[in-house]
Amino acid sequence: MSLKSVIAGSVRYLPILDWGRRYGRVELSSDLIAAVIVTVMLIPQSLAYALLAGLPAEVGLYASILPLVAYALFGTSRALAVGPVAVISLMTASALAPLGLQSVTEYVTAAGMLALLSGAMLLGMGFFRMGVVANFLSHPVIAGFITASGLLIAASQLKHILGVSVQGHNLPGLLSDLFAHLDETNPATLIIGLAALAFLFWVRKGMAAALQRHFGLSRHLAATLARIGPIFAVIGTTLVTWALDLQSWGVAVVGTVPTGLPPVGVPWEAWSLIPALAGPALLLSVIGYVESVSVAQTLAAKKKQRIDPNQELIALGAANMSSALSGGYPVTGGFARSVVNFDAGAETPAAGAFTAVGLLVAALFLTPLLYFLPKATLAATIIVAVLSLVDLSILTRAWSYSRADFAAVFTTIALTLTAGVETGVASGVVVSLLLFVWKTSRPHVAEVGQVPGSQHFRNILRHHVVTDPHVLTLRIDESLYFANARRMEDMVVERVLRDRNTIRHVILMFSAVNEVDFSALESLEAINQRLRDLGLTLHLSEVKGPVMDRLKRSHFLQEMTGQVFLSQYEAFDHLRSRDARIA
Amino acid sequence: MSLKSVIAGSVRYLPILDWGRRYGRVELSSDLIAAVIVTVMLIPQSLAYALLAGLPAEVGLYASILPLVAYALFGTSRALAVGPVAVISLMTASALAPLGLQSVTEYVTAAGMLALLSGAMLLGMGFFRMGVVANFLSHPVIAGFITASGLLIAASQLKHILGVSVQGHNLPGLLSDLFAHLDETNPATLIIGLAALAFLFWVRKGMAAALQRHFGLSRHLAATLARIGPIFAVIGTTLVTWALDLQSWGVAVVGTVPTGLPPVGVPWEAWSLIPALAGPALLLSVIGYVESVSVAQTLAAKKKQRIDPNQELIALGAANMSSALSGGYPVTGGFARSVVNFDAGAETPAAGAFTAVGLLVAALFLTPLLYFLPKATLAATIIVAVLSLVDLSILTRAWSYSRADFAAVFTTIALTLTAGVETGVASGVVVSLLLFVWKTSRPHVAEVGQVPGSQHFRNILRHHVVTDPHVLTLRIDESLYFANARRMEDMVVERVLRDRNTIRHVILMFSAVNEVDFSALESLEAINQRLRDLGLTLHLSEVKGPVMDRLKRSHFLQEMTGQVFLSQYEAFDHLRSRDARIA
Repeated sequence: MSLKSVIAGSVRYLPILDWGRRYGRVELSSDLIAAVIVTVMLIPQSLAYALLAGLPAEVGLYASILPLVAYALFGTSRALAVGPVAVISLMTASALAPLGLQSVTEYVTAAGMLALLSGAMLLGMGFFRMGVVANFLSHPVIAGFITASGLLIAASQLKHILGVSVQGHNLPGLLSDLFAHLDETNPATLIIGLAALAFLFWVRKGMAAALQRHFGLSRHLAATLARIGPIFAVIGTTLVTWALDLQSWGVAVVGTVPTGLPPVGVPWEAWSLIPALAGPALLLSVIGYVESVSVAQTLAAKKKQRIDPNQELIALGAANMSSALSGGYPVTGGFARSVVNFDAGAETPAAGAFTAVGLLVAALFLTPLLYFLPKATLAATIIVAVLSLVDLSILTRAWSYSRADFAAVFTTIALTLTAGVETGVASGVVVSLLLFVWKTSRPHVAEVGQVPGSQHFRNILRHHVVTDPHVLTLRIDESLYFANARRMEDMVVERVLRDRNTIRHVILMFSAVNEVDFSALESLEAINQRLRDLGLTLHLSEVKGPVMDRLKRSHFLQEMTGQVFLSQYEAFDHLRSRDARIA
Repeated sequence: MSLKSVIAGSVRYLPILDWGRRYGRVELSSDLIAAVIVTVMLIPQSLAYALLAGLPAEVGLYASILPLVAYALFGTSRALAVGPVAVISLMTASALAPLGLQSVTEYVTAAGMLALLSGAMLLGMGFFRMGVVANFLSHPVIAGFITASGLLIAASQLKHILGVSVQGHNLPGLLSDLFAHLDETNPATLIIGLAALAFLFWVRKGMAAALQRHFGLSRHLAATLARIGPIFAVIGTTLVTWALDLQSWGVAVVGTVPTGLPPVGVPWEAWSLIPALAGPALLLSVIGYVESVSVAQTLAAKKKQRIDPNQELIALGAANMSSALSGGYPVTGGFARSVVNFDAGAETPAAGAFTAVGLLVAALFLTPLLYFLPKATLAATIIVAVLSLVDLSILTRAWSYSRADFAAVFTTIALTLTAGVETGVASGVVVSLLLFVWKTSRPHVAEVGQVPGSQHFRNILRHHVVTDPHVLTLRIDESLYFANARRMEDMVVERVLRDRNTIRHVILMFSAVNEVDFSALESLEAINQRLRDLGLTLHLSEVKGPVMDRLKRSHFLQEMTGQVFLSQYEAFDHLRSRDARIA
């Protein structure tokens, strides 16, 4: 193996060897600025998502350090920012809840094991270049799942805004439980929560414009400040809670967050949970991968760059592995933070590594400052962030386009909200696949004729076309396989029997037949046999190369009473003229 | 509702109202002769299959009386003979074995409940006209399952030939257990068994020819005698066992078979087994239905008659219901007996009703004669019957035609033999469907050009065709849906980028696209966007009516940079000539 090929091979698995060689001062300063902005944004977010996952707040910080470095080494996107995200945090909570763990330590170790499993699965899929499995999550299923997760997460955070204690893992349970405990609402918490919510909505909708208008800030600077807006809510409510001693009024705060380096080690203590966590880890890996890759692709397209979907599996696998080994929990590329990173001018994955340094500094020195941070503020941060994921219009758009897509999105949303995230997304995938199989099992068969003045043949019901009473042409609008072969056979024979006295030749136009399996071959043989019994000949036209190769491996072509024509025009022309001569 | 429509409606569900009105003396005598022959053939067969199912011999007789009458009332095939068959008996044994039932009575009641559930499911599928579900059993899966079942049944009967006692429900288990007990072989049983086997093989292969040659019998009569040949083995070995008192030499006999009418009643005692039996009942119903309908269709085609697949569900449902209510177990239409019935000249389903009377007479008066019938003889009957089902050539035929079909048949055979009948057939169906989805997720995309002197376009790699450097035409050889949309998008974009400097127009030829789902629509929009960014226009050609209707419901056609052309020729001609003018 030459040195050159060794380097080329390494570049494939370590993209840093590619962009790192061209790294200069311009890239450095862009990346540093982006890193500072993303760090400020990530501190409250990572704490909030850890709480959403049912974990201590510091776990969110730990999950935002090494994973970023790992992605910087292995990732192919220039702007993707990995770390804890809302949907994956919800899936983590949902995976750990049924295990009945008693202590916080057990819970944290189990979350680490989940990240380890997910990392191993992603690495495995990456080495076997199985990025395609993500394609089996259809767009309606993903959109429905994200929307339903957003609703579920927002509902789960309402208890922190009200200051009440609530059980329930599905939407009806959460809401009815919340309603039952409404009289226990803590007024001070509610005021803090609503104020934070109002401020954060304003940050999202009106802050940038107001900063431009009233303070004459540039558009870019105003937008950047609006992006890190949540930090002002964090600082403001923390100060108020400290100054007014709101804790004694019943406001729940984050409390003591340990200072120091993330704990390093493999979460072996949770090895007995592997069987129970394997299924959730797989779903979480695929969902995380799909979310991350679509963000990466969207951002890459804006700069005409390309990402490598299989290498992204490796990078996310490495990120989850390193999260597991450093006290974190499952991570993936997040939409909001990646957009901020991109808009802030990140040039290379090094921006992510610098962000990691920022968060390490936070973990080492800043956590005591978070003592008085109200949980209601973090809940408000989450609610505002996830409501932007909710897009119920996918229901109406899917409905107006096709009933099958609607069924898939409806199933996904309904089951995610009522039966849980894993059931929801798995049912969505199964329903999509079953509907596809169901549709292909009921093929469309069109009788076609010649479009006058052309050699083109179209459906006699939709176009004015030329036909011949002695020549029946049926265009089979589906690949032929076991689930539809018998039905196609019946449709062809029934159509022939309706005009059995005038028809002499039957042409099956195969332009839309991409496959003929063994069962369908038997049906073609049966059609040939039945037409022969009726004294008719069977012909094929426009058979594609791959299908023709397949048919040649059987005896069907020798037994067929007619011929295979290159084009439908040739077939029609040939059979019609021969009959004209006979007549 | 008029009287006429009432009658028409009744005829749909009661075909007897149709053929019964035209029933005359000719039909009566043909049906009676067929009934006598089938009765003689069914007596040993029904006893043998009951023993195979693990049931007392008389249950086989009971399952051959009322079900025949029910099918005569509701069935649409003129020749189908229902009753106990080998594969369904094996499936019954396999469904009841894991229940851990203690007494014979419990076992018989559970078998009745299985028939009741199966009957209810078949009736339900019939009322909802769901005969199509049978199409999801592909030909390779059915062929593999029947072959593997035949091997499994033959192996399970060897213990009766050797006179040893053996456990084991799969082929490796049965054979190794048999080998371990080989030294316990009972010589007298082995002699009876081998003699019966040899005679029955001769009956099948050489008897008809020998009767013609040596006794000058007509071909038809010789064939008929050969068909009822097994009764001679039954009579011969029974007499020998009685005369030589072989029971004291260790030959196992059928023993006391109760005389009298079948016990009538619903097997309610087994209601608690319904959850455990529901799954097996469903598989058994579908397999039984597929077997029965294919026999019925084969025989109907010979007389240019037609059967109604949905009404067959009703008829088989009624047959199983009546079997359950009269002390029987699951039944379906059998191949061998139906062929005998057909060859013996049965004209109408009344032949089945007359056969039922014959078996009723047997149950009432003849069972004492069966006391000395050796079980080895019945085992030999089964072995010879099922070995004709074994056709391992399906493996080589499927292999030479397609690897996917081979994978389906191999999975079915391997798992049926090692993991059981239910696992085998269910895995076969799942593997077939997954392979189909996998294939459609990797679409073939061909670059096409014009076949000189025609308006037809074919793959540039397979044909000599005319192309234009400025116009790229890609024929998409698959319906576009979520599992392949992204891949198709990548393939199109990659091909375009290879010649981005010369290509000006891209035509996607949609002749083989039978469906564009919501996810695929997004990919088309992405392709349009990316080509627009590159300064190229996107066109479609030969879009089918149903696909066009769908696309019109979205905004895609308005946003598309190019046009939709009726035919590929029009598209190529139009785009090429415009560029010629520019040049």
